[in-house]
Amino acid sequence: MAKDDKFSVTPWTVTGKVDYDKLIKKFGTQPLDDNLKRRLEKLSNGSHVLIRRNTFFSHRDFDKVLDDIENGMGFFLYTGRGPSGPMHIGHIIPFVMTKWFQEKFKANVYIELTDDEKFLYDEKFSLDDSRKWSYENALDIIALGFDPDRTFIFQDTEYIKNMYPLAIKVAKKINYSLVKAVFGFKNETNVGMIFYPALQVIPTFFERKRCLIPAAIDQDPYWRIQRDLAEGFGYFKASAIHNKFLPPLTGPEGKMSASQPETAIYLSDGPEIVKKKIMKYAFSGGQATVELHRKYGGNPDLDVSFQWLKLFFEEDDAEVDRIEKEYRSGQMLTGELKEILINKINEFLEVHRAKREEAKETIKDFKVNGQLALKMWNTILE
Amino acid sequence: MAKDDKFSVTPWTVTGKVDYDKLIKKFGTQPLDDNLKRRLEKLSNGSHVLIRRNTFFSHRDFDKVLDDIENGMGFFLYTGRGPSGPMHIGHIIPFVMTKWFQEKFKANVYIELTDDEKFLYDEKFSLDDSRKWSYENALDIIALGFDPDRTFIFQDTEYIKNMYPLAIKVAKKINYSLVKAVFGFKNETNVGMIFYPALQVIPTFFERKRCLIPAAIDQDPYWRIQRDLAEGFGYFKASAIHNKFLPPLTGPEGKMSASQPETAIYLSDGPEIVKKKIMKYAFSGGQATVELHRKYGGNPDLDVSFQWLKLFFEEDDAEVDRIEKEYRSGQMLTGELKEILINKINEFLEVHRAKREEAKETIKDFKVNGQLALKMWNTILE
Repeated sequence: MAKDDKFSVTPWTVTGKVDYDKLIKKFGTQPLDDNLKRRLEKLSNGSHVLIRRNTFFSHRDFDKVLDDIENGMGFFLYTGRGPSGPMHIGHIIPFVMTKWFQEKFKANVYIELTDDEKFLYDEKFSLDDSRKWSYENALDIIALGFDPDRTFIFQDTEYIKNMYPLAIKVAKKINYSLVKAVFGFKNETNVGMIFYPALQVIPTFFERKRCLIPAAIDQDPYWRIQRDLAEGFGYFKASAIHNKFLPPLTGPEGKMSASQPETAIYLSDGPEIVKKKIMKYAFSGGQATVELHRKYGGNPDLDVSFQWLKLFFEEDDAEVDRIEKEYRSGQMLTGELKEILINKINEFLEVHRAKREEAKETIKDFKVNGQLALKMWNTILE
Repeated sequence: MAKDDKFSVTPWTVTGKVDYDKLIKKFGTQPLDDNLKRRLEKLSNGSHVLIRRNTFFSHRDFDKVLDDIENGMGFFLYTGRGPSGPMHIGHIIPFVMTKWFQEKFKANVYIELTDDEKFLYDEKFSLDDSRKWSYENALDIIALGFDPDRTFIFQDTEYIKNMYPLAIKVAKKINYSLVKAVFGFKNETNVGMIFYPALQVIPTFFERKRCLIPAAIDQDPYWRIQRDLAEGFGYFKASAIHNKFLPPLTGPEGKMSASQPETAIYLSDGPEIVKKKIMKYAFSGGQATVELHRKYGGNPDLDVSFQWLKLFFEEDDAEVDRIEKEYRSGQMLTGELKEILINKINEFLEVHRAKREEAKETIKDFKVNGQLALKMWNTILE
């Protein structure tokens, strides 16, 4: 948990305007610096917008993953999703990154759907709810293009038997003091939540290689626990790269929230809804009138549409520069900027919808029949 | 937990000389009185030594189980074993009782082997240890004569997938305050132990009938939690009958302990060892010399050999009376009394050893292939 007067980041809530430099200091992680980026570019023969633009801004031991690529040992990837509702644009960032690493390095990917955790966390949420969303979210994840023979998607309540023996070994090493300190658990916290951190650690032990976890920074407390325990179990300390949150449409504070649909674009939003939401809600860095805007220019650092383009949607660096300059100078109006984002998002979502339909067929490969899934169902982690 | 200056009873330790009347008050249970015993005798067309002699001395809602037998609804039985080592004579009391109820009323029996809990509890115990003992203990349990088509023996780490969805629903209703109060958990308690009580509740929900739990009184805290939750889940409050501990060979305090082999007779002890242990260690109520014994008589209330005969091993009431009188009068010497117990135990263990060999064949029916086992492996508790 990172808390100060201005913002707070925990695995369950984010409030205030997150200061990412402060977060690096508080969480004790490292900035993802140019040296690492250059090494990755060389090894991957490419570069990804999410890294170039610093959307992934922080890491733990990412340099060691690069070492393991260089020395031929390889690595595997792990990320997950708390299936608490429909997925929005912000949720896919770690998955897009994970898929890119898989493609570049032919690495195995493990995706945990934490139906137990989401049920345990939310008083009003039923287990049927979190299972329904596990299925729906899996379709959205698969649509991003994972390799069905190198990706295993599993739901905690379904895969528990394979994980439980190792989970209790991990649980035996985690006492109440620790989870109280790390997650802020209280006397009122239910015993399911208290046990759950042991389960989230287990996939980092799915292979005897280094595990790279692309995930939002709020999940880092779990990896801190993992890193204290891993070597005692004969595994590697997890390596992680941390992404910033895409700011909510409505402004730079907090993160997109399922309970406030106007803060987010959902993967299920049709072209008209996307247009309407961005036009109506996207927080603008522009001036109050066209005249003032032409005179003083807009502020792309505050403008959510520009931030979304920069953090994720516009892959072309030259184009991002052009937009930034024109907007800052006043040459480009907020409406024009929004139009660019609307088109980018709708292009993305059109492809996504088609791929999501196909995923209804292929989901069985990711969960059961694919090469990696078959292997994992035959593995009891001990 | 029941603690006072003199004795303490928790699911993990028993110290001091247990005052069972006090325990009934502290735990808020009811004495198993003559009225209930008479009703049971009538319904069962019989009577069992463990009930006649008050070895089972306390209950919760046992009257309601008798109602449900009378009104034709029936009931089911649940008990368990923490597989922390070899089983001794004291361990089999609840199983002998359970088996009798099954035989008399053709009731289903569920036997939980808590390999997870024993591993989580003991710092030095490995999961392999508790699994090995799960197998060994299951053989001893089966040898007592359970019906392979009406008995399901399961190990938590093996059956977890079928229980976990319901276990997290139960866990969601149990907060840290509660387990702290009920079990005395501390900041140092590991998160596996903290979650575990939710799992021990689940078998009480295996059927939509009343569940009768014959178990030592130290397990009662779990049933208190169960009884607060059951009706909210649409199940019955568990009913329980509680047995006293057979006193350790070495004296009336505490309970037999695996770490002090001289305190217990193990089911694996051969005739010579039984003889030697009882002759050497069994706490005697006799006088210091034969002359004094003849003059003042022995004290059967303190004599562990007599207590074992009375609580379990001598089924014939008239014979118990005779022994008691003769010992109290000084007519029977401690050596003679011990001889009676040695013969009783060795007769029992000789039969047990043969049945335990047969259990190596039938264990698969209890765990996997029997009628009830088959049904339970196809059931996910929700």
